[in-house]
Parts: sequence; structure tokens; C-alpha cells
Amino acid sequence: RIKASGLKLRFCTNETQATREQFVRKLQGFGFDISVDEVTAPAPAACRILRERGLRPHLLVHDDLIPEFAGIDRTNPNCVVLGDAADNFTYANLNEAFRVLIGLENPVLISLGRGRYYKETDGLKLDVGAYMKALEYACDVQAEVVGKPAKRFFESALAELGVQPQEAVMVGDDIENDVGGAQRCGMRAVQVRTGKYR
Amino acid sequence: RIKASGLKLRFCTNETQATREQFVRKLQGFGFDISVDEVTAPAPAACRILRERGLRPHLLVHDDLIPEFAGIDRTNPNCVVLGDAADNFTYANLNEAFRVLIGLENPVLISLGRGRYYKETDGLKLDVGAYMKALEYACDVQAEVVGKPAKRFFESALAELGVQPQEAVMVGDDIENDVGGAQRCGMRAVQVRTGKYR
Repeated sequence: RIKASGLKLRFCTNETQATREQFVRKLQGFGFDISVDEVTAPAPAACRILRERGLRPHLLVHDDLIPEFAGIDRTNPNCVVLGDAADNFTYANLNEAFRVLIGLENPVLISLGRGRYYKETDGLKLDVGAYMKALEYACDVQAEVVGKPAKRFFESALAELGVQPQEAVMVGDDIENDVGGAQRCGMRAVQVRTGKYR
Repeated sequence: RIKASGLKLRFCTNETQATREQFVRKLQGFGFDISVDEVTAPAPAACRILRERGLRPHLLVHDDLIPEFAGIDRTNPNCVVLGDAADNFTYANLNEAFRVLIGLENPVLISLGRGRYYKETDGLKLDVGAYMKALEYACDVQAEVVGKPAKRFFESALAELGVQPQEAVMVGDDIENDVGGAQRCGMRAVQVRTGKYR
């Protein structure tokens, strides 16, 4: 209905356990009319930052997310990109990412979100934010967070739509990530009472 | 020579990858005249806290440290004790410790140190402090740190010696953990230019 009205539409997700392709297929399965180029997600936003600043990432992310980084030079890394790596959060992988980071003259840590934890069918899990804090502390750095509620993340979505903040409305169920983030970016925002709302 | 002089002596270590027995055997191998009951270490200090406050720990520690917690009730845990668990820092174990902690009405996290990282023959490793920060962030709690440079750790050592802070001198190679911690406890402290000094 939004599309039929002629309004421009964009989907902003913090999903970092899957590519946009997988994410879109899931939503299509729920009956949504959505395509990959309508999605703003942390990984492609990170790729834009990497390209702009000539950064070559060491990736500590979910296996299913790696295709999003195709075409990004990952040799001789000069930064670390951290996502919700789930089972890839092993002791060995964390130490490896730490060693890359601490070995850099100017350590750059890009985190695809700052969530504390989330719930899966088999229980609560530590989210990317917890591991971000571990690396921040060990290396005495501050991570650059990509994804909601980061301002630059909303700015990317606006740029992709070709509209100004005051012309846009954010709709989401998360008071901080969706509503707060969008408002700090100069957008209006609406919280829906579905999803995680309570 | 210190012993021959009649001065009281105590060894304060932040070792949490081994029991005091193993630690003492190693030092004896280097030729030191030392016995287990002369050692103040984080795990027994934590055990004292656990007993005093009726806390039953969920342990996320190195396998070799577990014997230190013999005699401590670990059923139906109402706190988490975190040590340098090394290979036990798996994704599953971290999630498990997190779930115990977040599920408590009053989450208590006791950390056996707050080190950022340390060096082993095969490279740098994240230390317990990094994982402490991850759990602190995820559960929005502040860990209680046992071990140097915590004040209560030095107070334990003083109590074991039966002396007042102003009667004691701390000797160590770490300006913060050894010297700073002891001074904040009212002791005098000497930094030696051996070990990690540079």
C-alpha cells in the first residue's frame, strides 16, 4: 500500500547473520513485496566505509555474511570488522581479531551493531556489542558502530532514497535503535506496537 | 634471606590458570623456598567472599583452577565467577555464564582479575578483563574484581600476615597492579626492574 501511494520506501535492518539476499527471501516468504536494492543493512554500509577510507578488513563475522564483502580487499588487513559471528566467536578467532587490532598503528574497529543480547529458540545469546566491548577494552580503542542507531546508517538510507531527513519518516518497533536513532538524524519516527514492543 | 631476617613474607599472585599447588611447584622448581600457605591468590580470595556472602558460583575458569573451589557449593548458582578460562572461553560457555547472570535478580559477577591481555609463546591472548567487559555490558552490571590491584586483595594478604598496611612493603614489577594497588591500600611499595618492567 505504501508503494502504491507513490511514497519512497526503504527497509533498514540490523541483520548481520545473513546477506541481504537471504534476508529478502525470508521477508518475501512472509508475503512482502521487497527486493535487495531496497534494503539498508550494516554490512554494505561498512563496505562503503571501507572503500571510502581505503580500509582492508579482517572479518570476524557470521559465515553467511561473508558474501557481502565480495570485492573488498582483505589482504594485509588494517582494520577489524566485527559482526554477530555467533559460532565463529571462538577463543581462537577472538584472539586472532585482537592480535590484528593491537598490531595496528592506528587500530580501527568497525562493529556491525552494538546489541547486548538477543533471544533464539535455544535461549539468550551474547550479541555483537558484548564482543565489541571486549575488544575495545583489550585494545583501548572505541569502535565505530555501523547499523541502527548510528547516525551515518540513517544517512546512508536517506542518501539511497535521495531525500532529506525532514522529508522522511522512520517506522520501527525499537524505541532506541529505530525511533531514537532516526530522530537524532533529524527524521520523524513512529514506533509500532508489534515485534519486540512491550 | 628475607625469611632468615625474621621478616614476615607473603607471595601475592594474580595467577588464575592453576591452583596454588601448581604455582608453588613451579616456583620451587626455580629454587624458591615457598609453600602453599604463603600464597595469596585470586581464587581462594574469591572463595572467602563466596562463603562470607552465601554465594554459589557458576564457574567460568580454567580447568586447572577448579580444585581451588572444592568445598564451595555450586548448585543452583546465584553468581558468576570469571577467571582467565583460556580455551574454556567458548561461545557456548560464554553464553551459559551470561544466561546465569542475566537470569539473577541481583546479578553478581566476580572477576579474578581485570587484565587486558598477556603474551604466551604462541602470541598475545585476550585476558579475563576483556571477557569481564563483555559480560558487564551484556548484563549492565559492574564486576567485583578480586586479585591485584583490588584493595580487598591486599587486605586479605595483610590479614593473613597479621600486620597493618603501614607495617608492610609490597615488592613487584607492575607499577599499577603491584605498586599502585598496594599504595592505595596504605602500604609502601617498591617496583623492581625485573620481570615485565621496561
